[in-house]
Formats: sequence, C-alpha cells, structure tokens
Amino acid sequence: MKAEIIAVGSELLLGQISNTNARFISSQLAELGIDVYYHTVVGDNPNRLLDSIKIAEGRADLLIFTGGLGPTKDDLTKETIANHLNKKLVMDDHALIYIEDFFKRMNREMTENNKKQALVLEGCTVLPNKHGMAPGMLLSNEKHSYILLPGPPKEMEPMFQFEAKPLLPKLLNEETIILSHVIRFYGIGEAELETKVQDLLENQTNPTLAPLASDGEVTLRLTAKSDTEKDAWHKIETLQAEILQRVGNFVYGYNNDSLASKLRELLIDNNLTISAAESMTAGLFQSELAEVPGMGEALVGGMITYTEKIKVEQLGVKQQLLSDYGVVSSQCAEEMAVRIKEKFGTNIGIGITGAAGPDGHGGQPAGTVWIGIALDQMAPVSYKLSLTGMRNTNRLRAVKFTIHYLIRLLREEGIAKI
Amino acid sequence: MKAEIIAVGSELLLGQISNTNARFISSQLAELGIDVYYHTVVGDNPNRLLDSIKIAEGRADLLIFTGGLGPTKDDLTKETIANHLNKKLVMDDHALIYIEDFFKRMNREMTENNKKQALVLEGCTVLPNKHGMAPGMLLSNEKHSYILLPGPPKEMEPMFQFEAKPLLPKLLNEETIILSHVIRFYGIGEAELETKVQDLLENQTNPTLAPLASDGEVTLRLTAKSDTEKDAWHKIETLQAEILQRVGNFVYGYNNDSLASKLRELLIDNNLTISAAESMTAGLFQSELAEVPGMGEALVGGMITYTEKIKVEQLGVKQQLLSDYGVVSSQCAEEMAVRIKEKFGTNIGIGITGAAGPDGHGGQPAGTVWIGIALDQMAPVSYKLSLTGMRNTNRLRAVKFTIHYLIRLLREEGIAKI
Repeated sequence: MKAEIIAVGSELLLGQISNTNARFISSQLAELGIDVYYHTVVGDNPNRLLDSIKIAEGRADLLIFTGGLGPTKDDLTKETIANHLNKKLVMDDHALIYIEDFFKRMNREMTENNKKQALVLEGCTVLPNKHGMAPGMLLSNEKHSYILLPGPPKEMEPMFQFEAKPLLPKLLNEETIILSHVIRFYGIGEAELETKVQDLLENQTNPTLAPLASDGEVTLRLTAKSDTEKDAWHKIETLQAEILQRVGNFVYGYNNDSLASKLRELLIDNNLTISAAESMTAGLFQSELAEVPGMGEALVGGMITYTEKIKVEQLGVKQQLLSDYGVVSSQCAEEMAVRIKEKFGTNIGIGITGAAGPDGHGGQPAGTVWIGIALDQMAPVSYKLSLTGMRNTNRLRAVKFTIHYLIRLLREEGIAKI
Repeated sequence: MKAEIIAVGSELLLGQISNTNARFISSQLAELGIDVYYHTVVGDNPNRLLDSIKIAEGRADLLIFTGGLGPTKDDLTKETIANHLNKKLVMDDHALIYIEDFFKRMNREMTENNKKQALVLEGCTVLPNKHGMAPGMLLSNEKHSYILLPGPPKEMEPMFQFEAKPLLPKLLNEETIILSHVIRFYGIGEAELETKVQDLLENQTNPTLAPLASDGEVTLRLTAKSDTEKDAWHKIETLQAEILQRVGNFVYGYNNDSLASKLRELLIDNNLTISAAESMTAGLFQSELAEVPGMGEALVGGMITYTEKIKVEQLGVKQQLLSDYGVVSSQCAEEMAVRIKEKFGTNIGIGITGAAGPDGHGGQPAGTVWIGIALDQMAPVSYKLSLTGMRNTNRLRAVKFTIHYLIRLLREEGIAKI
C-alpha cells in the first residue's frame, strides 16, 4: 500500500507554519510499513485541491488529508472531496451535539457557521475529535481510501493515533508483523554514537536500524519484520543486546520514555522526593517534570529565584557567597540545591544558575550554566555546561542536562535501583 | 510569477524531520509577493523526482529544490535535472577549492565522492555555500527558472537569503512594493473573529486579509501592494482602523509581539514587578516570561507549590481555606496570589491552581483552572478556565490565558498606560 499526505492550507504556503502534520503521520505510517512516496501542500483553493487529488489518485492508494475542516468559508476539503466522489455531505448528530457542548463548556456563544463542522461525507466512518470540534472521516471505495483529519496538530495527532491508525491494518490486509523499538540516549553526540555502531548500521537488513538526533538527544530505532510477533521481538532483542554492550552507558530509556518520565519512575520506585531552586531556567525544570502525570508524589515544589535579592532573602543564600564567587558559580549552584532541599524537606535538591543569553550574566559569558545537586547521602556536587545555542535552546538544554546528570548520579550512587 | 517548492529526501517521507525549509522559503517569497501554490516532498528516487518536476513545470514558473546535493549515491537532484534539461554537469573550480579547504579546516581527509559536490549544471549561476560544501545553482530557460539548494537548514537558509533572493527581482521584473502587517488577538476564537470581520474577508482585494489560528491565539495578516511604500502603509492603516473598531478589545499586540514580550513591555514601562505561585503550571508561567531577555527587571521570582503541604507551610495559605473550598478554587487562587505578592514584595502577584489532566484534582474535573491576580490598588480577582485539551496543552493554555487576563486588567484599570 502506498500513501500520499495532502496538507490543505494557505498558511502553509505563506510560510506561517511548518507542515509538522506530514512528519507525524509519516512516522506513524513507517511503523506500520506503509510507504509514503509524496507529501503535497496546497492552498485553500478548491480547483487546485482537486488537481492535487487527481494526481495523488494516480500514484497512491491511501490519501490522507489534513486541514480545511474548520468552520470558515476557506475550509473546503470535505466539500471538494464530496464533489469529486459524488457524495453528499450529511449532518452527523453526535458531532453536532459534541460541538454544542464544546461551546457550552467554553462558555461561549456558538455561531451558525460552526454547525458546518458537523457535516460529514455520506457513508464514511466518522473519527471523533476529542480535542476540538471538527470530526475526521475515513471513506473507502474499490480504488482508494481517503482519510480526512483536522489541521491543528493537537487535534490531528490524537485523532490519527487513536481513531484512524487502528483502522489501517484492515485496509492493509496484510499478515506480516512489523515491530518497532526505540533506544534513547543522552550525553553522547550523533556522530560518536554512529561511529560506535557503524558496522551494525552498514549491515542492517532485518531489523533495520535508524539513528535520529534532536535537542541533544539521540535515538536508535530498530524495526523488524516477521511472520510472528515472537520472532520479530527475538530479532530486535538480539540486535539490542549488541548495541547495549557498546553504548549502554548512555542509554536513559526506551520507546515513549522521556528524560522526565524516566526520572519520575526512578523517584517514585525509590520513594524519593525532589525540590528545585531555579534562576536562569525560571521554573522550566520543574515544569518539565510536571509534564508527566503523577509527578506530584515526588515533586513537592520549589522556588524561582530570578534576582540576587530573592536568592538571599527567600532562599537563604549568603550575600557573602554571592560576593565571593558570583551568582553563576559552582558554589552558588550547590548552595541553592542545599538550601531548597533543607527548606522544602526533600531527599533531593536541585540548584540551577547561569547566563541564558544573549548577554553574559554574573561575570560569565552567555551559555555558562552551573547545575548543583544535593542528596541525602553525600556532599553536594555540581556540573558546568558551556552551551552555544540561542537563549531558549540554552534554557531547555540546561533542564535536560540536569535530568540526565541526576539520573546518572542516582544510578551510579546506587540510590536508585533501576 | 508562481513558484513551487520541491523538497527531495526520503528522511522527510519517513517522518524523521519536518519540512521547515519549505516554510522558510515560502515566508521569504511571500515578502517578495511571489505566489507559492504547491509544496511537494519526494524521496531520493530519480523517477519519482522526474515525475514531480514535470508536474511542477505544468503549474509553476519558478521551481525551487532543496536537498539531494550531497556526496552520497542517494543525492541525485542535480543529476536528474541535468538529464531532464539535457545539460551537462561541469566541475566548478571555485566550489572544488572551497570543498578541499573545508576538509583542511576540519582536519579531515577528503574522500573522492566529495568532489561530486562541486559539479554544477552547465551555464548556471553558482550560489556559494558559506556554511557547508555543496554549492547551490540558479538556471533559467525561456519557460522556467530552477533554483537548487542544499537540504540542511543551516546551509540552505543563508544561501537562499543572501545568494538566491537578491537574484529574484530580476526574474520578477517588477517594481511593486509589498507590505505585510500582523494583528495579534487572544481570548477570541477564530470563528467568532471571522464572523465579526466577515464582510472585510469577503471583499478583500488590496490589502488582502488572512486569518490564522494556533495555540489559542488568532492573527490577521494584512498585505498591501502599491507603487509606493507610503501608499501601501496607508492602505494597511485604513483597514486596520476598521478592524480595531470592531474587535480591538481582543488585540494584545502586533507583528513579532508575543504575549510574554507584550507583558514585559507593559511591566517595564510602568515600573511594575511581578511574582507568581504556581501549582498545576509548576513554573511554566514564570519560565514563559523568562523566555524574553531582560525580564529580570520585572520578574523577581516566585514559588512552585505543587503539594498542599507546601502551599500551607511555605506559601502561608491557611489549611482551613483549603479544607473549606478545595485546592482548585477561586479562593485558593486568589490567596496564592495575595501571599506570593506579599512574601516577595512585588506590585503584582499571580496564583495558578488547577487540574491539568488526565485525571481530575481537588474535586474538580480535568481542565478546570483558577487564575488569581493580586494588584496593589485593588482586591484580588480570579478567572476560571474549563479547558478541553491534553495535559500539557492545558498547562500552556493556562499560562497564556494568565498573561492575557493580566494584560487586559492592567489596561482596563489604567495601571499600565499603553
């Protein structure tokens, strides 16, 4: 089966947003072994959209559309497809009730044009929209299947993953099992990792092995095909064992793990609590931890001490220490970690101070970061980063390195058992 | 002139990266008034690339290619175009010397396949690559122009901007001035906004008017064409005046403003300081403010009070209040705002409490958020949100609504003068 992804929206052609939907859907289809040969982006123009549909029908079996399902006159995707396939648009009662409820919950008045969102292609399978209003659709005829999805990624991604993707194996009608497994690394560069598994990368057939780097993190994706699930897993496990032997040191987790979810697991499983005092990251470290549901059992809270005055008056860092060593120093980071740990009564205290940029701070150049960690069992330790990115890349990197160093320290010190 | 952007690379079709190059080039072309009707993504396959070129030649005058100029056997963009146009590939001496130098500077040995990168289309204008090895190309015949650019954004973006873009007005042969202006709204839905400016959207010619919604924010882009800059601005100002009269209430800023940058401007210009106590957002509000450089003059810091215990012991919220009203309540949000304002000695105190999801919290369903604001001049106020997104969308929305309500309150109360 060959698929083509057609994104509809003039805002894409004006360069106001990137087509991240095509990336998301493509990676999901790759997991299912469905080949994507083309992405197309077309504006909110019914004639050009129709031309794109005809071209896609000539080279793909499955056409996946994103965008153009909204309430405005510009939104014409389902109207154009209905015309082309000679199908009526009919009101879907469930969708209409859901949209009316949506407005009630938001305490807003529903304007008439919003009803249009509940119209669906006659005879289609309706894909509910749990995070917005316009429902999606799946329609198949002898030659092609058409999936229509909304444009906003926060609506499209869960709809594709939970409503559309489970329907695809039926369309595929295939017996081959395809399994994918991701190994997640931090603290090692892409080039260094690739050098260490060069021969495995070169000789890959089944499983295939694909490296990918982003945001300081590197992943390896292992994908195996077989007649049985058991054999596919065996293939993946054999290759994984070889990889772990070489670079297992840098592995922090697997598949949907994030640094934060992995840390949560370590903290909860070992009954550890954490607090943080943040300066340059201004709450981003704790916010990143709180992205994971259930973090409340481990993360009790902390302080944002953006100014020197607050560091001294509220956190209790000595003015003398700041005068002696400066606010961007190992001494200040360790002291922040010790003070917040004591004040909030946790097993772990974190202190982050630095110069995010674009200017230097506390006598240090932009990109300098000190991370302090205080644990029950030992004297505080600190780590220095010299980052080279823009302000907010540096802030995010500082947060991710903090989680990475903490995970390693907990494991190396035998404080966390997994 | 109509343009089409063709991205070449199987990594895009596998969903490993997003096609950010198309977004970048499109936004640059929009500034020049060049219409982009399609983006195409095709893999490293010469037959499918050739098919895409033929389709694009039938619907565009200018074809811009990204990717497929590298040293490997997969890189086939210029070879495919050379075959199609019956052109030879010739060695460009400048490019070759540059590539040899590049390896010397990197202290690496140059392998033979790297020479292939210095081959260019016979008769083309060579576009130097200041941030990598493969040069770009511009070639025109009677019917079409072809621009070939490398795939990595850090090479492509400066090459397009500084080498290719300056050559486009000659291709265009136009004298028209094009100006764009963006009005930014918050707290109003896309459909509601469009209803209020429906007639302006329907009758648009010059300036054109384009709505765009993302992350709870809606923008209107006004684009005017004229012979003179003065007249183009006059057209934009006339239409903007009409829009402000209808929905000026929801406008928070213009062009590159963000909610956070706008708030920073209001705070600094009016000598106001701010602190926050965050529960469900766990530092995201303060981190969002700190994304803007120079926020340190207004944001002194705050607390993250993730657990009830910390709210009581560290922030000073009365246990009785939590027992009476619950932790997700207007009373708790207002008390958090009042307490942090007092403790940190600022003009403004913010309290955010809620149930981010997926589960409810404090007896309230997921998505319930209370935002408290305490100001010097008045009794604390609070706002309720009922959000419908996933956990982290809700957390980000809560932060953006907080900034939005604060900006409105400061303006309405006459505390901030702009």
